[in-house]
Amino acid sequence: MESKEISQAVISRLPRYFRYLGDLKDLGVERISSQELSRLMQVTASQIRQDFNNFGGFGQQGYGYNVEYLYQEIGKILGMDKTHHLIIVGAGNLGQALGNYMNFERRGFILKGIFDKNPDLYGKKVREIAVQPMEEIEQFVKENEIDIAVLTIPKNSAVQVAEILVANGIKAIWNFAHVDLNVPPNIQVENVHLSDSLMKLSYNLERANKENK
Amino acid sequence: MESKEISQAVISRLPRYFRYLGDLKDLGVERISSQELSRLMQVTASQIRQDFNNFGGFGQQGYGYNVEYLYQEIGKILGMDKTHHLIIVGAGNLGQALGNYMNFERRGFILKGIFDKNPDLYGKKVREIAVQPMEEIEQFVKENEIDIAVLTIPKNSAVQVAEILVANGIKAIWNFAHVDLNVPPNIQVENVHLSDSLMKLSYNLERANKENK
Repeated sequence: MESKEISQAVISRLPRYFRYLGDLKDLGVERISSQELSRLMQVTASQIRQDFNNFGGFGQQGYGYNVEYLYQEIGKILGMDKTHHLIIVGAGNLGQALGNYMNFERRGFILKGIFDKNPDLYGKKVREIAVQPMEEIEQFVKENEIDIAVLTIPKNSAVQVAEILVANGIKAIWNFAHVDLNVPPNIQVENVHLSDSLMKLSYNLERANKENK
Repeated sequence: MESKEISQAVISRLPRYFRYLGDLKDLGVERISSQELSRLMQVTASQIRQDFNNFGGFGQQGYGYNVEYLYQEIGKILGMDKTHHLIIVGAGNLGQALGNYMNFERRGFILKGIFDKNPDLYGKKVREIAVQPMEEIEQFVKENEIDIAVLTIPKNSAVQVAEILVANGIKAIWNFAHVDLNVPPNIQVENVHLSDSLMKLSYNLERANKENK
């Protein structure tokens, strides 16, 4: 499927469609019109049709989309039919939380290794995976087919660790470190800057408080 | 300061400015031009000036912005000069990870309570705060001035819990549950859908793999 020119804005919306379609499927819904989906998701029906037209439209007919088919197709676009191997760098609270999150495995994101520089954590198990010393990471990434590195380490070491990972073949980084990584353009990075998100909430709270005064 | 018409896109960029300015300040940089900031942050200088003009421009002169002043002003806009009281609902791995994250407290986000429905967790301490039963939450929110609720519970209970919180006066929700909450428009919600973020990374990885074949 040709997908090179699809904007990141459209891509950002796909997981949400996938989530709603999964919920509908679980509820036993077989077909849904773009109008119904629009009401449910609170986006316009025209937005939905435009988004889907990027991928050929998914064959909506007079009586709407086939939920199961649409779920599967969007899943394929998102790579949910593939298995990804990931490592977590940083076995602190957040790294452990992500490692323990079963849903990722259900979606084909398989945890293969977890690393930390704190000797107290070596051997500690997250699911069935024992925490290894940071010194092992290069060898591990080289010898195992790792697609994705999850960075849950402080910002002062994240930039350097990202460089090491990329030099050893990592192609994608899910970055929770509070810093923008400087990696080549062929390396995919998805940032989750939690503080930024909390600050945005704080801003909106302040603004709402002012408006209500 | 009049800020009603500022777009969420601009607001979303403010925490990143704040982060870079904080780093520059820590490095002892006193002044920076929009060109230098542009190079550092990899956004255009015109974007920076446009963003800042929403707030009066922050008085750039021939020799650039005063870093400390700009940091303080953007911090004020983001409500960083205020203290916010928050509770965490869901004391699992993620709830504990967020509760233990010291940086939030440094920014004025003070953890006041943490709740779970699992009796095994009652009394367990996250920092100095003991986990309380979910049944206590209504009373607690009513009696303490809580601004923000952090939801780290499964999606099937999140919608209902959000309703209870809002009915008891919560004004802002930082939502990690994998569901869109249905709350009145005067309630501020900031979603962190981790699975959505990971799927987007997966999509971009697939696309890059195809392009390189």
